[in-house]
Amino acid sequence: MKIGILGYGNLGKGVECAIKNNADCELAAVFTRRDPSSVKILTEGVPVYKVEDIEAHKDEIDVLVLCGGSATDLPKQTPEYAKYCNVIDSFDTHAKIPEHFANVDKVAKENGHTALISCGWDPGMFSLNRLYANCILPDGKDYTFWGKGVSQGHSDAIRRIEGVKDGKQYTIPVESALESVRKGENPDLTTRQKHTRECFVVAEEGADLAKIENEIKTMPNYFADYDTTVHFISEEELKRDHSGIPHGGFVFRTGKTGWNKEYNNVIEYSLKLDSNPAFTSSVLIAYARAVYRLNKEGSNGCKTVFDIAPAYLSPLSGDELRAHLL
Amino acid sequence: MKIGILGYGNLGKGVECAIKNNADCELAAVFTRRDPSSVKILTEGVPVYKVEDIEAHKDEIDVLVLCGGSATDLPKQTPEYAKYCNVIDSFDTHAKIPEHFANVDKVAKENGHTALISCGWDPGMFSLNRLYANCILPDGKDYTFWGKGVSQGHSDAIRRIEGVKDGKQYTIPVESALESVRKGENPDLTTRQKHTRECFVVAEEGADLAKIENEIKTMPNYFADYDTTVHFISEEELKRDHSGIPHGGFVFRTGKTGWNKEYNNVIEYSLKLDSNPAFTSSVLIAYARAVYRLNKEGSNGCKTVFDIAPAYLSPLSGDELRAHLL
Repeated sequence: MKIGILGYGNLGKGVECAIKNNADCELAAVFTRRDPSSVKILTEGVPVYKVEDIEAHKDEIDVLVLCGGSATDLPKQTPEYAKYCNVIDSFDTHAKIPEHFANVDKVAKENGHTALISCGWDPGMFSLNRLYANCILPDGKDYTFWGKGVSQGHSDAIRRIEGVKDGKQYTIPVESALESVRKGENPDLTTRQKHTRECFVVAEEGADLAKIENEIKTMPNYFADYDTTVHFISEEELKRDHSGIPHGGFVFRTGKTGWNKEYNNVIEYSLKLDSNPAFTSSVLIAYARAVYRLNKEGSNGCKTVFDIAPAYLSPLSGDELRAHLL
Repeated sequence: MKIGILGYGNLGKGVECAIKNNADCELAAVFTRRDPSSVKILTEGVPVYKVEDIEAHKDEIDVLVLCGGSATDLPKQTPEYAKYCNVIDSFDTHAKIPEHFANVDKVAKENGHTALISCGWDPGMFSLNRLYANCILPDGKDYTFWGKGVSQGHSDAIRRIEGVKDGKQYTIPVESALESVRKGENPDLTTRQKHTRECFVVAEEGADLAKIENEIKTMPNYFADYDTTVHFISEEELKRDHSGIPHGGFVFRTGKTGWNKEYNNVIEYSLKLDSNPAFTSSVLIAYARAVYRLNKEGSNGCKTVFDIAPAYLSPLSGDELRAHLL
């Protein structure tokens, strides 16, 4: 399976690594909006092209993995490149998924291609677990917790504050809330009761630290509804202790079974990831395999993880899966 | 969707309850090997027939749920009734799944029916989680723990010992082993290091308790390889404190991502169930929905949970799923 990567940031690099870790995959080309000669990739002997050259190289690619951002890149790119190739993205603006789906579906169907959107862990593996658990326990309650991990959006918000040189934000689930859900207590939890936020900030020399801390803690949407801790640290400390991009989280469904709903059940799924982009990329490559196979079978148009039978993700045959994993 | 139940034990009753909890399902009939007049079911106005009458009532049933045992019932029943109906079972003898699959597949295909075997939580939801996690983390290690819960097979083994009137056995995962796996330490665990076994035994009057305890603890396959605790209790205590059938367990995969496999990841799925048969039945009914739909689409033959796209389990449309659960 020949994979193309569009966009060589953290996610693009992650996809390159995931290809190396899957024997049936091969990196065909990387496409970039930068000057290709300035982009140094890890895999030897693989070309880097300008993004405008995708059409010219479309026959060398079985699946194109789109590694741009959800805010402005993917809404344009995924429908655009579904014209030329099978495509997969990790579009994660939950509220805009229906619109994005419709746009991609139209182009993919018109061109006989298969597309998969919103693939990763949330949306992605977390969504799958919500769906399975909702179908098994129709009478129940869902809980999703994120972290401990780095939120890119919240880190960016900190860095936009005057006097801030650099910063990193961790989202942390509240342990007592997790425990209550896990015990089947079905708590009603406010935003503040579910997560705390911890910020590590490098201030400009002479900046007003109290003012920065106050601006962070009162920032609407991002921090105001949470218990937030702010630590001022040096640039060296930030680099030494906070350069990773770990993440993870928990999906629960608690629900009742029995004639009089007398039995409680707790379904829990959790992830603990040293690198968010490396894991997301690994999910993307497993699903790229499915996209490739579905296209070969003539199943075109846009899909999500909900539409893919799990066996399509595996390099093993049905016989092997039944014998070893069932 | 009209459901038939074959076999009205714990699992059959569980299926009846799950039907009540799913608005799009209706119990059409219960089939039994006992005298139908002796079988009192919970749902009013639904007939109980002799198992021999299935063929005569096949047009009243969209999916027949087979609730017999894996040792001798299902290997015969599932292929037999795939002749007349779409069928689903929870066949759980892992080693014999390939053979059972082939037998059921042949009959289902010949008769234009859809069958799903080995559906429940293990095999079933645990298998799905093993598969997804293996596809995402091809370089990793799997761990499955069961419990805390009642093992029917081990309870039966205790009850066969001379001098034992009744008994119940709990399988318990070793907490320190769970913690080690959860931390990503990738331990190599022996049978003894993964689970302990706790037995509650009602002895016949005058029985040799030391002899019973020794027979349990040294029983090959069932107990000899485990740290086993035996408690002698009264019949009243057994009834009062141990009449439930709780179960559950944990599926982990730990694995590496990154160019030099420098990142660790832990995927964990767990279940905590007040009633094992009530939960298994809830999984069966969600998958019965898929079987019914696949048959309508003309997708015949035998399937497993690996072959079913998750959206087929839900009463919601693709649009609704994308808008609310993705």
